[in-house]
Amino acid sequence: MSHVPDGPESVFTYGAPALKFGPGSSDEIGFDLSLLGARRVLVVTDPGVAATGAPDRVAERMTAYGIEAVVHDSAHVEPTDASIATAVERARAAGPFDAFVAVGGGSAIDTAKAVDLLLTNPGELMDYVNVPVGAGRAPASPLAPLVAVPTTTGTGAESTTICVLDVLSLQVKTGISHVRLRPVLAVVDPRLTMTQPPGVTASAGMDILCHALESWTARPYTSYERKAPEQRVPYCGANPISDMWSERAMRLLSGAFRTAVRDGSDETARGDMALAATFAGLGFGNAGVHVPHANAYPIAGRVKDFHPEGYPQDEPMVPHGMAVALTAPEAFRWTFDASPERHLAAARFLDPTAEPGADPAALLPRVLCDLMRDIGLPDGIGGVGYDASDIDGLVDGALKQQRLLATCPKPVRADDLAAIFERSIRLWE
Amino acid sequence: MSHVPDGPESVFTYGAPALKFGPGSSDEIGFDLSLLGARRVLVVTDPGVAATGAPDRVAERMTAYGIEAVVHDSAHVEPTDASIATAVERARAAGPFDAFVAVGGGSAIDTAKAVDLLLTNPGELMDYVNVPVGAGRAPASPLAPLVAVPTTTGTGAESTTICVLDVLSLQVKTGISHVRLRPVLAVVDPRLTMTQPPGVTASAGMDILCHALESWTARPYTSYERKAPEQRVPYCGANPISDMWSERAMRLLSGAFRTAVRDGSDETARGDMALAATFAGLGFGNAGVHVPHANAYPIAGRVKDFHPEGYPQDEPMVPHGMAVALTAPEAFRWTFDASPERHLAAARFLDPTAEPGADPAALLPRVLCDLMRDIGLPDGIGGVGYDASDIDGLVDGALKQQRLLATCPKPVRADDLAAIFERSIRLWE
Repeated sequence: MSHVPDGPESVFTYGAPALKFGPGSSDEIGFDLSLLGARRVLVVTDPGVAATGAPDRVAERMTAYGIEAVVHDSAHVEPTDASIATAVERARAAGPFDAFVAVGGGSAIDTAKAVDLLLTNPGELMDYVNVPVGAGRAPASPLAPLVAVPTTTGTGAESTTICVLDVLSLQVKTGISHVRLRPVLAVVDPRLTMTQPPGVTASAGMDILCHALESWTARPYTSYERKAPEQRVPYCGANPISDMWSERAMRLLSGAFRTAVRDGSDETARGDMALAATFAGLGFGNAGVHVPHANAYPIAGRVKDFHPEGYPQDEPMVPHGMAVALTAPEAFRWTFDASPERHLAAARFLDPTAEPGADPAALLPRVLCDLMRDIGLPDGIGGVGYDASDIDGLVDGALKQQRLLATCPKPVRADDLAAIFERSIRLWE
Repeated sequence: MSHVPDGPESVFTYGAPALKFGPGSSDEIGFDLSLLGARRVLVVTDPGVAATGAPDRVAERMTAYGIEAVVHDSAHVEPTDASIATAVERARAAGPFDAFVAVGGGSAIDTAKAVDLLLTNPGELMDYVNVPVGAGRAPASPLAPLVAVPTTTGTGAESTTICVLDVLSLQVKTGISHVRLRPVLAVVDPRLTMTQPPGVTASAGMDILCHALESWTARPYTSYERKAPEQRVPYCGANPISDMWSERAMRLLSGAFRTAVRDGSDETARGDMALAATFAGLGFGNAGVHVPHANAYPIAGRVKDFHPEGYPQDEPMVPHGMAVALTAPEAFRWTFDASPERHLAAARFLDPTAEPGADPAALLPRVLCDLMRDIGLPDGIGGVGYDASDIDGLVDGALKQQRLLATCPKPVRADDLAAIFERSIRLWE
């Protein structure tokens, strides 16, 4: 459609929802919805978050601004094609709605994105899921406004253009990615995160950390070939804006992460974790993530019999943040030579006392392992039930995430991933 | 309308346009407009920028995406109520348009905001101008999408919710401020800034610097009383996000400002100035500015016979950035005791070698004066034609900017402003 000059990429893009941050901000959503012209909204949450009373309170507060709200606890923790289909069906039956509000973690926010998409655009879920799993169709029309209210400090789903889901029949985690899925407003109220159990704070916090670290070490936008505007994707590689968010997120985590896990009632630590989650989301939502996130898909998707503390116990699961974290130390040992100074700087953002020894590539893995052990994460993928016989399957699953691996700072082959998984079976024992 | 808890403010807000940054980005606007559903757009520019050919090129590139573009060189450098009325009249006659594109400095971007407002909402300009000068009415409907393409590295108008103008009959600079005026997309192409003459780079660069410095030192959002949502304004005081943008803008200026003035063909310095302008705009567009900007209104508005290099010579003017800069050193000497550590940190962001001597309050003014002298700014308000007899009038004009002075880190009285103006008649000679 347009002439593209030869040569390296010279342009980066940046998009973000508007933000309202602070204790009490979730009481004001009715006003914000009224500015968006909304009258009747669907509040999407999951049963666990619904039990805290937060979604009902958010909905009840809207009535002062003339907003009618219906609450559906229709999100499944780690959404699946089946859970989303059910949520969409319930929403269609209760509609029409002129805006959506998601109250919960990434699962609720991602479910709301899919519900919004399928209530405002024709077709069904698999039409929009990324190729090769789905047809990868782009939404033809803008979605209705989506306000995201995160209650876990982790996913950054409030800032991003993606919806992650499991396709049960194929035993694969995949997603829908389009700029029209981005929420228009993120309302981050640290008070809503106070009820997160320590295990959730730890796993979700590692998701924050890896968002920041993977964006910070991502392939720079200038290392790609120049794109035509219609070829641009929301994840454009490391750039001066994503770098800034990532660095600041890591510095906040350095001060608050251990405290927030140890003492969930520490309001300052909770506030800093909420801010770090938002900052990291604004960074990776524009730069992208790479190996640890690609590896997390099969680690979570092929779970056998792991039941983490703080999560629903009815089904085995590896929480997303934990799945991301478990190969991160070895992934960053492997990426070290792509940008040594960035890896060393990141280690110091996370631990200002960190000093490289004889093997500088070991510094960041050491800082990560110290943290993971302190906050009670399992010791490697072995700790969630995988052994050497699983590695081929895990590698196959990670290789399906080419959209993510495209942001890796160096080319990734199957044997690179196999070595990372192998070294991640046990991390510190 | 809503119950507001007692006590200090706990919530801050953050809004920003989407951003496309880099050499060549201005060739892609047709694609971005097509995503916004636009078919027929008005490109607003001023005669000086039009003469560079950039607006025609931007318009011509849109046709590949099926966009019909009309170019109006209807913006006046430093817009007035009369110039905006003429621009609106021309736009109404040539309309309808379903989107607007501003190519130019703050004058073109602000003119486009006003044209967009008055082509999409009922009433006339003075209905929307801030009280007490105008009626301060809020736009009832969303505006049409506005894409801002800055060609000077300074105003940050591409990020903000405000339109600044002179009301000729009252000899006062005022504005329109509403969240609906914010452009939806900023396209920052450093190549468009290469033609800025050194005098424009210097003045506009001081505007960047003062945006960053005034936001950085602004009254913190937590120091206000808790607001109801309908009382919130886009400029909510210093907050963790505006701090981050401001700090990064100052660090970029530290490396690039003198070079960009001395050698306008240095692409790295131009790129860093463009990035600094954007970053500072994203900061002050949410935190606010205070004394130097308040003082700039009467300094520019009451100009007698000053004709700066690099600007149109047909009318006397003090360019906005220059007007802001001339009282900045003394304003920051006066605000020092509100947050000494912030003032010292800012001095070091701007000059990493700066060391406080016996009088720490003098450090930041010294760093600013050294810079201003190096880049050829006039020596104080005396250098643009004011003397002691003008001070009462200047103070009266600054006091009219209560919207800005509300962000000052300490209460401002008339005699405080008089002392700042007095000490700013000569800064270094």
